[in-house]
Amino acid sequence: MSPENVWPHVRGIAYGGDYTPEQWPREVWHEDVELMKRAGVNLVSVGIFAWALLETAEGVFDFDWLDELLDLMHENGIAVDLGTPTASPPVWFFAAHPDARVTDRNGTVMGFGARGMASHSSPAYREAIVRIASALAERYAQHPAVVLWHVHNEYGVPIGEDYSEQSVRAFRDWLREKYGTLDALNAAWGTTFWGQSYGDWEHIGAPAAAPSVVNQTQRLDFARFTDHQLRACFIAERDAIRAHAAQPITTNFMANQSWTTDLWAWAREVDIVSDDHYLWAADPEGEIGLAIAADLTRSVGGGAPWILMEHSTSAVNWQPRNVAKRAGEMARNSLTHLARGADAILFFQWRASRFGAEKFHSAMVPHAGTDSRVFREVEQLGATLGALEELRGSRVVADVAILWDFESFWAEDLEWRPSVDVTHPDRIRAFYERLWRDNITVDFALPGQDLTRYRLVIAPAQYMLSASDAANLTRYVADGGTLVVSFFSAIVDENDAVHAGGYGAPLADALGVVVDEFLPLRESAAHDLSWRGHAQTLRSSLWQEDLAVRGAEVVATYADGPGAGGAAITRNTLGDGVGWYISTRLDAEGMQTVMREVYADAGLAPSTAADGLEVVTRRGDTADYVIAVNHRDEPAHLAVRGTNLLTGDDLDAGLTVDGGGVAVIRTSPTRGGDR
Amino acid sequence: MSPENVWPHVRGIAYGGDYTPEQWPREVWHEDVELMKRAGVNLVSVGIFAWALLETAEGVFDFDWLDELLDLMHENGIAVDLGTPTASPPVWFFAAHPDARVTDRNGTVMGFGARGMASHSSPAYREAIVRIASALAERYAQHPAVVLWHVHNEYGVPIGEDYSEQSVRAFRDWLREKYGTLDALNAAWGTTFWGQSYGDWEHIGAPAAAPSVVNQTQRLDFARFTDHQLRACFIAERDAIRAHAAQPITTNFMANQSWTTDLWAWAREVDIVSDDHYLWAADPEGEIGLAIAADLTRSVGGGAPWILMEHSTSAVNWQPRNVAKRAGEMARNSLTHLARGADAILFFQWRASRFGAEKFHSAMVPHAGTDSRVFREVEQLGATLGALEELRGSRVVADVAILWDFESFWAEDLEWRPSVDVTHPDRIRAFYERLWRDNITVDFALPGQDLTRYRLVIAPAQYMLSASDAANLTRYVADGGTLVVSFFSAIVDENDAVHAGGYGAPLADALGVVVDEFLPLRESAAHDLSWRGHAQTLRSSLWQEDLAVRGAEVVATYADGPGAGGAAITRNTLGDGVGWYISTRLDAEGMQTVMREVYADAGLAPSTAADGLEVVTRRGDTADYVIAVNHRDEPAHLAVRGTNLLTGDDLDAGLTVDGGGVAVIRTSPTRGGDR
Amino acid sequence: MSPENVWPHVRGIAYGGDYTPEQWPREVWHEDVELMKRAGVNLVSVGIFAWALLETAEGVFDFDWLDELLDLMHENGIAVDLGTPTASPPVWFFAAHPDARVTDRNGTVMGFGARGMASHSSPAYREAIVRIASALAERYAQHPAVVLWHVHNEYGVPIGEDYSEQSVRAFRDWLREKYGTLDALNAAWGTTFWGQSYGDWEHIGAPAAAPSVVNQTQRLDFARFTDHQLRACFIAERDAIRAHAAQPITTNFMANQSWTTDLWAWAREVDIVSDDHYLWAADPEGEIGLAIAADLTRSVGGGAPWILMEHSTSAVNWQPRNVAKRAGEMARNSLTHLARGADAILFFQWRASRFGAEKFHSAMVPHAGTDSRVFREVEQLGATLGALEELRGSRVVADVAILWDFESFWAEDLEWRPSVDVTHPDRIRAFYERLWRDNITVDFALPGQDLTRYRLVIAPAQYMLSASDAANLTRYVADGGTLVVSFFSAIVDENDAVHAGGYGAPLADALGVVVDEFLPLRESAAHDLSWRGHAQTLRSSLWQEDLAVRGAEVVATYADGPGAGGAAITRNTLGDGVGWYISTRLDAEGMQTVMREVYADAGLAPSTAADGLEVVTRRGDTADYVIAVNHRDEPAHLAVRGTNLLTGDDLDAGLTVDGGGVAVIRTSPTRGGDR
Repeated sequence: MSPENVWPHVRGIAYGGDYTPEQWPREVWHEDVELMKRAGVNLVSVGIFAWALLETAEGVFDFDWLDELLDLMHENGIAVDLGTPTASPPVWFFAAHPDARVTDRNGTVMGFGARGMASHSSPAYREAIVRIASALAERYAQHPAVVLWHVHNEYGVPIGEDYSEQSVRAFRDWLREKYGTLDALNAAWGTTFWGQSYGDWEHIGAPAAAPSVVNQTQRLDFARFTDHQLRACFIAERDAIRAHAAQPITTNFMANQSWTTDLWAWAREVDIVSDDHYLWAADPEGEIGLAIAADLTRSVGGGAPWILMEHSTSAVNWQPRNVAKRAGEMARNSLTHLARGADAILFFQWRASRFGAEKFHSAMVPHAGTDSRVFREVEQLGATLGALEELRGSRVVADVAILWDFESFWAEDLEWRPSVDVTHPDRIRAFYERLWRDNITVDFALPGQDLTRYRLVIAPAQYMLSASDAANLTRYVADGGTLVVSFFSAIVDENDAVHAGGYGAPLADALGVVVDEFLPLRESAAHDLSWRGHAQTLRSSLWQEDLAVRGAEVVATYADGPGAGGAAITRNTLGDGVGWYISTRLDAEGMQTVMREVYADAGLAPSTAADGLEVVTRRGDTADYVIAVNHRDEPAHLAVRGTNLLTGDDLDAGLTVDGGGVAVIRTSPTRGGDR
Repeated sequence: MSPENVWPHVRGIAYGGDYTPEQWPREVWHEDVELMKRAGVNLVSVGIFAWALLETAEGVFDFDWLDELLDLMHENGIAVDLGTPTASPPVWFFAAHPDARVTDRNGTVMGFGARGMASHSSPAYREAIVRIASALAERYAQHPAVVLWHVHNEYGVPIGEDYSEQSVRAFRDWLREKYGTLDALNAAWGTTFWGQSYGDWEHIGAPAAAPSVVNQTQRLDFARFTDHQLRACFIAERDAIRAHAAQPITTNFMANQSWTTDLWAWAREVDIVSDDHYLWAADPEGEIGLAIAADLTRSVGGGAPWILMEHSTSAVNWQPRNVAKRAGEMARNSLTHLARGADAILFFQWRASRFGAEKFHSAMVPHAGTDSRVFREVEQLGATLGALEELRGSRVVADVAILWDFESFWAEDLEWRPSVDVTHPDRIRAFYERLWRDNITVDFALPGQDLTRYRLVIAPAQYMLSASDAANLTRYVADGGTLVVSFFSAIVDENDAVHAGGYGAPLADALGVVVDEFLPLRESAAHDLSWRGHAQTLRSSLWQEDLAVRGAEVVATYADGPGAGGAAITRNTLGDGVGWYISTRLDAEGMQTVMREVYADAGLAPSTAADGLEVVTRRGDTADYVIAVNHRDEPAHLAVRGTNLLTGDDLDAGLTVDGGGVAVIRTSPTRGGDR
Repeated sequence: MSPENVWPHVRGIAYGGDYTPEQWPREVWHEDVELMKRAGVNLVSVGIFAWALLETAEGVFDFDWLDELLDLMHENGIAVDLGTPTASPPVWFFAAHPDARVTDRNGTVMGFGARGMASHSSPAYREAIVRIASALAERYAQHPAVVLWHVHNEYGVPIGEDYSEQSVRAFRDWLREKYGTLDALNAAWGTTFWGQSYGDWEHIGAPAAAPSVVNQTQRLDFARFTDHQLRACFIAERDAIRAHAAQPITTNFMANQSWTTDLWAWAREVDIVSDDHYLWAADPEGEIGLAIAADLTRSVGGGAPWILMEHSTSAVNWQPRNVAKRAGEMARNSLTHLARGADAILFFQWRASRFGAEKFHSAMVPHAGTDSRVFREVEQLGATLGALEELRGSRVVADVAILWDFESFWAEDLEWRPSVDVTHPDRIRAFYERLWRDNITVDFALPGQDLTRYRLVIAPAQYMLSASDAANLTRYVADGGTLVVSFFSAIVDENDAVHAGGYGAPLADALGVVVDEFLPLRESAAHDLSWRGHAQTLRSSLWQEDLAVRGAEVVATYADGPGAGGAAITRNTLGDGVGWYISTRLDAEGMQTVMREVYADAGLAPSTAADGLEVVTRRGDTADYVIAVNHRDEPAHLAVRGTNLLTGDDLDAGLTVDGGGVAVIRTSPTRGGDR
């Protein structure tokens, strides 16, 4: 059976959140329904942690309360995203199957009492999830309230890797499937190093605690295996549901805060991509991280509309200092997600739990009740989204791609890299942030995919790059693309083996340079670069390199530091395109200097909007929609013509967006349909 | 049998320390006795870690050396506090009962070789402690040297919680006793959150390592259970002794450095409350922490005289940097304890151990011997205490109470609170310190107790507050009391569930305000408050709140920060009393500004003594005793009339206390007997 | 059988590195041989991690590839240091003997996948290492390429201590051998403290995880036991080889970065001492640490030529920030090792591994290949060493000894010392650094050895000092020596028991002072000393003391801090000698002030060479060799007459050493043969 529709049957932009009626008496259910209608809520997610209440003992089901709830929702015109509760098996499951518990790297068995994720490789767990998913699908496939299936919750969180005996056995099977022979495995893992050659499949274990650093290819394969096993759990549930039900099926991730799942692979298995997003409170510009997450979510889904499955009305509860959102911030966040492709704006959670580990997490109905800033803004946001129904299905089109490759990140994160200061989140943020400030919208991409639609491709952290992916990037340049590569890229192949020819060798043609030696700096050290002769001095920190220039133009040299006198930034022409290489970390100003020239090569122009005014365009069939979000307290002017959908005003001379405010303008399609 | 007397038969103020003759040859015993007499020592604690020497194999006792020692003490007029050695079972015990070892949260079994605390729930341990305690009591109940029984040592230190199988079984029994039904437990624990409902008592475990945050009510109950089990061990020993012996029985804690034992509950089980106190070396004003500990010890004992069972003559050995006490500091510390109600000033330890983990801990007889600063000051202190015999039995009377509720602290310390920067020690210290500098003596109290005797009650950190305790505080205000409540108070009920009505709701009548939303600040952030319009600017850090004022007067508003424009500090009148609410952390100056007005409401006046001159009064039947301790190097004047007990001088025009010095003055009773 | 020669049959200074042909195809072997000859390589180490390839299943050997390799080496005139691969047993070994895995203090069993060190006490492991070592020796004893045997690799790294059951059993046997009776053990361990008396050998365990600090003498004995067991493993292999082979046998350590092996004891068991040295990248003057390591290596070997078995051509891979060496630095490092006694300059590694945990470690042939700075410098260094053949066998003679006592370090490193800021590496570095800047060459020594050949002996960190060693030091002073003792020395005896008489008592005669009390400072605190009345102010940090002066001259007093007014630095005359005591940490300037006077007492003169010009002399039979290494960028003049061996120039008016350069000058023997 295929899903009969890809998007859930909800009118306009979906609005709502996780709903946990199991925590409340019946009178609160009825109050909730009234408040939901008042707030414009049209979709709620239920059942996500309710296994213990739905299957009270193995095979003994109690659906009465859920029947009642779904009927109530339907009677009141609120659609339901029905969860499978498999992220938290009941205590009776673990009592019957103690070996289904997860074991960590040090051999500690993870007990019950939190969120009780089981071993992804436990046969008993696999059987149990199919049983509950089937039972739910069989009972509710035809229920008119149910418009979407929500499998599990945030796979890989709070724990994904499992070092139990059954996981080890499954790992061996996965390796046998991948490598076929032990010779192939020994070669891929480089087991001649440190005397690790295997002569028997049964001798292979998980990369658990050991006296020193464990074989890094083994660890990388274990990461791949873990991702694969989690996805196999998803597929088992998905197929169990699909056997009975025709609604679309999704599962939710925290896109850029959850690192153990390869979202590109997951996106191929779901009907709709969903994201959970929480601001990182310590970041004073958390909106940039938000934009990264939204663009990544859209990108893995191939540009299709996606579901913001969870975000927060205000503070979360699990960060060291849970900074609350201030007036207007929830709307700004929501509109940014919408601007970047979300057609559903949902929250964790509808009503704040009075008990449990997350009782200090904000909600649409906070502990303070409805006479509160938060609930008033929830009502207002419902009205705003109600005015934006026509945006549904419109799409974001980007001219720039930033490479985001989970497998490379997994490899880069392993121990014993040249400098602990080099991290992919830092590198990606640095480049993304520059583009964000310039209001140039970005897709994320894989190095091996078709990149021809992009004017500019940036590789901020492509530590691992296969020869074929490198060839793809080289072809991209030769065909006229502009490629920017940051240091510590193209170092190893898919087995974490250094490329023959040295660091960066696979991109030597594209970049006209290879790396003789890494020159990591001591902690907090910083140095100067000379840009374009001595036209300007740029600041460099964290890392330098000793470059062997093979045809590239040297546009900046190290003025001091261990690389003093050598090339720092190069620009190479190959065929119709250009390849830039930046061998150090630049500060924000230096990044601006370099990217200004990169934009020129790529035929891009930075936005002229005021600082802090985020502008993104969604393209519909007959109109474009410009979404503007003002992150500053001062009003900001936006040069745009069209109709302000939130006020109905026609705009001839542009628009002033209030400090902290948002605007959505319908405009003529600028290049609609040309891509 | 009841104790025949509450206070041990020792003349005057008891003076001495822990004595470990088992570490020394006989000739040193005799030298020790001579030195004790020279120093005025009249009470020593023995046997505390001597189990392996007293019971050399299961049921095989060797009391000869202890007989000899007790006789020697008695012959020389030195009384003995006889310890039960159950804090450190012998190695043969663990060899015979390996399952009596403690298991930590991660499943690591704690081995032998340190202080060998066994599982509080091990039947074998329970049996063994009763056997040794009975044997000691039977043998020494009539020994004339023995004036006090000292059970165990610092329950809960170095480890209290046990996650072993036998502890889990006992935890289930304790829960069954507490809740009666699984429905009640499920409701109290909020198990509908994250799908944790229990259907079988046998499925319940300890809150051990898990993939995420464990059910917080389960953790809170486990803390209560741990405290209960430790106390059950004490009670078993106490009753075994009482079956034979009539002397008072105590056990010792480190009052404000040991957080796992509810001292209020323990105080109900002992005949005399005992405290061990060690300065926190990193604190340049460690004397304030000392005063807190002393006041807390007195308070849990209901104001009765208490025993300072251990403190140090100079440095300890277990802190990162073990700062030594300087000349006069030991006497200042001792006199402060005495001033705050101690009638026994004892040290760990009489003579420094040459070996073992604490060989660098100071002693009355240090490694340097008797020709040393420390021993000279020990002799001097003995003489000083000898002159203070008449203070024995006099009492401290306080007008102010600070709430100190261990269960609330346990709950507040759990994970996933709004900000890691909010801690009860910080909040209590801030308020206590202001009162200490103002020489206003403080009791600690529980929120549910009778508070009518206090002019002022302060709740610096009452995160957990039951509805009935809140009603008690409200009644206290209505009846004319002054109540000060600091932020993050009255948030949850006794099951760690947020109060219906929102944060602070139970105190809404008393304070005229509730909390719409917490506004934790980012690390190190600080902002301004406007006090009384713009009369003054106060500094605020760590936390702000969005308050909903319901009748209170707003006395300070947030000038900036996330709460900008909102109320920060409020004052409410209810009936005959006043309720203050302070929704942020103030600096010392801000605290002084606010407390000046609070004092006025409460009819209190701060001391006019010089900065650093600590003044406390003990009240006897016929006289008061003013104890003054000068923590500064400069002399300080004290306006007091009476007799200087350390010099015999009659004071008409007050007294100048030397820099670093102490004074004790007998004065006329000021309000003696009126309470 | 004795070794037929002590130094391996290699012409001139040995040059080369670890070679791992098992990681490469045959064509690379042939390329390697050509490159080795080009670079002047004459010695490579092979087989170190090749167990799995040599013994493919228990007792099944495959020597074909090694036969081929050794023949190839021999044909090309490259000698081989043949390793036994016992640092990393094959996976089949652990599969067959899971109980041979190492268990850590917390009970975690260390798995396979890194470097697979087995339990030093496993009978199966002992049997297996003898089998493989015997097989290798039998096969290759007569092979003409093999000139040296290299047993194992860096014993104790990455793990040495083992808490498994078989280790515990061996520990009991070792203790029984050491103590004979339980009474003796109980006395040595001070088990009367905390009630730890043992009545049965079988009750004794390893000092594993426990609720508090474990018996420190038990821990100290466990460290001694671990060292002993590791050495027993070495001896078993050595003897197995010697049964067949006559070449010298060595094993390699990281002298001053590996703390668990008593190098003095190991040096007695090897034919030649070997060192692995890696710069600590965070240290901007890593060359001082290098000199310490080199001097220590020479010293434990009694001054005989030693092998620098491993160092790096550039960056390592296992530090947080792996700073690369810059131009000339590899040569400077190599010449410094040579200057301080190394007659073999070898690297880890010949060719960089493309895979495995150390793929980012530098090599003689880097990933960038031979057209690289590193390989060019490798060739240059080969030529340089080729010109220094005549230095072989010449020796370093030092006038100063610094005490370096591993057992004392083990004891000092245990928990609950007076201040975490007091560490032996810090103290040793402070004194060594002063002498290094003054170009006064230093031996390291044990406190109990014959010290009469030294003009000056320094005890920077002799926390543990037996009575007999103290007597040796006292005799050294009385006989005319100059002794400098830094604080926290002579505190405990060989059982970690405080000396009777107090801190420093065993050196009271030598120093004329004992310590009444330690006065550790709070974090980051610093104070002033008055030097020689008020002639100068010195800065003091970390620690002060309350000294009881017993005859010494007080040369500096504490101006402030807790010791204010007391003696800080003293100078004592005893017989013909002088004993200095420094009771605090001085800054570099203060150290210079004090050491200037110490030098005068000892009849030493600091060098007048430019700052940063390191000068060391090796003495041959007919000539001395002055090696000068310029660590600064500026040229530096060296007043020396003789022949510059690297240029052939005769020097009459001294020599200018280039910035970053090195020089080796043959001079007349200055005092040759007079020692």
